[in-house]
Amino acid sequence: MRAFENNIRKVEPYVPGEQPQNKVIKLNTNENPYPPSPKVTEALAKMDTDRFRLYPDPTCGPLVEALAEFYHVDRDQVFVGVGSDDVLSMCFLTFFNSKKPILFPDITYSFYKVWAELYRIPYECQRLDGNFRIVKEDYYKENGGIIFPNPNAPTAVYEELDFVEDIIRANPDVIVIVDEAYIDFAGRSALELIDKYENLIVVQTFSKARSMAGMRIGYAISNPVLIKYLNDAKYSFNSYTMNQAALVCGTEAVKDREYFEEGIRKIIETREWAKDRLARIGFICLDSSANFIFAMHPDYDAKELFEEMKANGIYVRYWGSERIEQYMRITIGTREEMEELFRFLEKYMGVK
Amino acid sequence: MRAFENNIRKVEPYVPGEQPQNKVIKLNTNENPYPPSPKVTEALAKMDTDRFRLYPDPTCGPLVEALAEFYHVDRDQVFVGVGSDDVLSMCFLTFFNSKKPILFPDITYSFYKVWAELYRIPYECQRLDGNFRIVKEDYYKENGGIIFPNPNAPTAVYEELDFVEDIIRANPDVIVIVDEAYIDFAGRSALELIDKYENLIVVQTFSKARSMAGMRIGYAISNPVLIKYLNDAKYSFNSYTMNQAALVCGTEAVKDREYFEEGIRKIIETREWAKDRLARIGFICLDSSANFIFAMHPDYDAKELFEEMKANGIYVRYWGSERIEQYMRITIGTREEMEELFRFLEKYMGVK
Repeated sequence: MRAFENNIRKVEPYVPGEQPQNKVIKLNTNENPYPPSPKVTEALAKMDTDRFRLYPDPTCGPLVEALAEFYHVDRDQVFVGVGSDDVLSMCFLTFFNSKKPILFPDITYSFYKVWAELYRIPYECQRLDGNFRIVKEDYYKENGGIIFPNPNAPTAVYEELDFVEDIIRANPDVIVIVDEAYIDFAGRSALELIDKYENLIVVQTFSKARSMAGMRIGYAISNPVLIKYLNDAKYSFNSYTMNQAALVCGTEAVKDREYFEEGIRKIIETREWAKDRLARIGFICLDSSANFIFAMHPDYDAKELFEEMKANGIYVRYWGSERIEQYMRITIGTREEMEELFRFLEKYMGVK
Repeated sequence: MRAFENNIRKVEPYVPGEQPQNKVIKLNTNENPYPPSPKVTEALAKMDTDRFRLYPDPTCGPLVEALAEFYHVDRDQVFVGVGSDDVLSMCFLTFFNSKKPILFPDITYSFYKVWAELYRIPYECQRLDGNFRIVKEDYYKENGGIIFPNPNAPTAVYEELDFVEDIIRANPDVIVIVDEAYIDFAGRSALELIDKYENLIVVQTFSKARSMAGMRIGYAISNPVLIKYLNDAKYSFNSYTMNQAALVCGTEAVKDREYFEEGIRKIIETREWAKDRLARIGFICLDSSANFIFAMHPDYDAKELFEEMKANGIYVRYWGSERIEQYMRITIGTREEMEELFRFLEKYMGVK
């Protein structure tokens, strides 16, 4: 081995999520089955590519303004980044600098642990209860910060705003981040509490309800003080992250509220129908409030079923990790895609 | 002060580079005065926005392939990121994990210091000589890694390939990164040495010669072993960074070699003419091999001149930091923009 190998940061080689090439039913990465707003296509077609020669606006002006208007907050309450992964990572770096451990659920978004390790932030996972619910009292102890998704992933379980507020209120001395990637399919957002709690940051994304996973746009909303810290950190490390196409397309997407709401309505409708269909063939689904369902079948091994589905061109997500070995996560596709899923499942299970 | 303020990472608030709104001659951020390849505009006009609903290809397949073909290397020798800032930052994180200090010039790209501090990497700046040249012997001592730009910034000074090779050869036990943001305007690239030295990484960008600062694309080329470490690190922290528009536009831009070469030719021509004009009115220019000139005038205070130019709508870059208080950096614009610059300078200096 070469000497320089000793000083290379070696990480667990990660295999990116499957991007099947042939025609499949892709219900494995919680993408939106519908295209983004037609306003995005229009904006691209008339984009001034001469502008590409210049660095993009580091303040992301028009996009920040559109989001501020949409969510009825001020411009200095909005921070945007390259997908909510970038925003969350920047939040970890900026706000979690205590020697006390930050707290997050044991079953949750897998990147929290990765960023904590990357930035050498001590952390302590809090166990979800037997029904895969967050136990709020676990977050009342001394800590260096708190983060949890609502709805949680991959469980899809949503906690009511009162519950979320209890955690925020119990932790005035640390920053509490509510990761709301899936909130548009669920219920009330913690955004309602932004003016009430100065330790609260809400993070959302364009990848789910806004159908723009491919454009990598996420954002945080908080009070101007915390947003300024985030911007200071971002500017000091890498000022220009959001490219011109993302800025323009993102702005147009936010302005089209009607299309956004209609897309959400369709997905919720399909989800509720799909939950019912799954229950009828014996699946047990956690109470799903996202654009996916976390489900298990008492009579069928999840891993075997997952493999069989894959072999038949239906991709869902399976982890096989502790406590969730028998669960799979099924993204809500179009009604037609879900019909295909049920045709397969009913045939596999011999349901008439 | 709130308790949570204690655990917030506070950084020197950075003011992003000026993005003047009104019509000015913008020679302050080393952007390309010409638009990107027309193939980029064509690609955008026919882009399939339905694809935006899906996560982008985390391997950046077509863009990596286009770059590999352009530079006559294999696909597994290319890593791409969100501008060369992202690529360089990822290199620091991945390769500079020694307890010994990394080495870079005292006058150089300002972000090296920022990333070293961010990732808690010890570093030691090596003083450029009186003519603002790198002293290669300074890089022969024990160290934890080496990085320098060639041409250097903001001096624009290019070192010949033999010189670069001497530094690489003297450091077989550490990673040497040659940051070639401006190489296309200069001379031979260290890419010629990739197969010869397994400790070498060359980083380049789309922001300068390819006129795409607004799209945020950079890349590293090295051997497959080091590129794999970079990809492993990237995938483990944030798998999806390059958005769909950047992937498509970047690929098209790389394929248009003729446009790329013609653009470089024009800028070099304007630069050589501008150096001559500057010399004629008494400026002293470092030997410039980039798309900018680093210059000072013995009879005029640089700060005053800078302010006066700005007041007249001509933006250049001025730092006022140690050793370069009397220098300003002038980006090469179009011939017409440079004519405007000289009209102002000649008037200011009372040259007939």
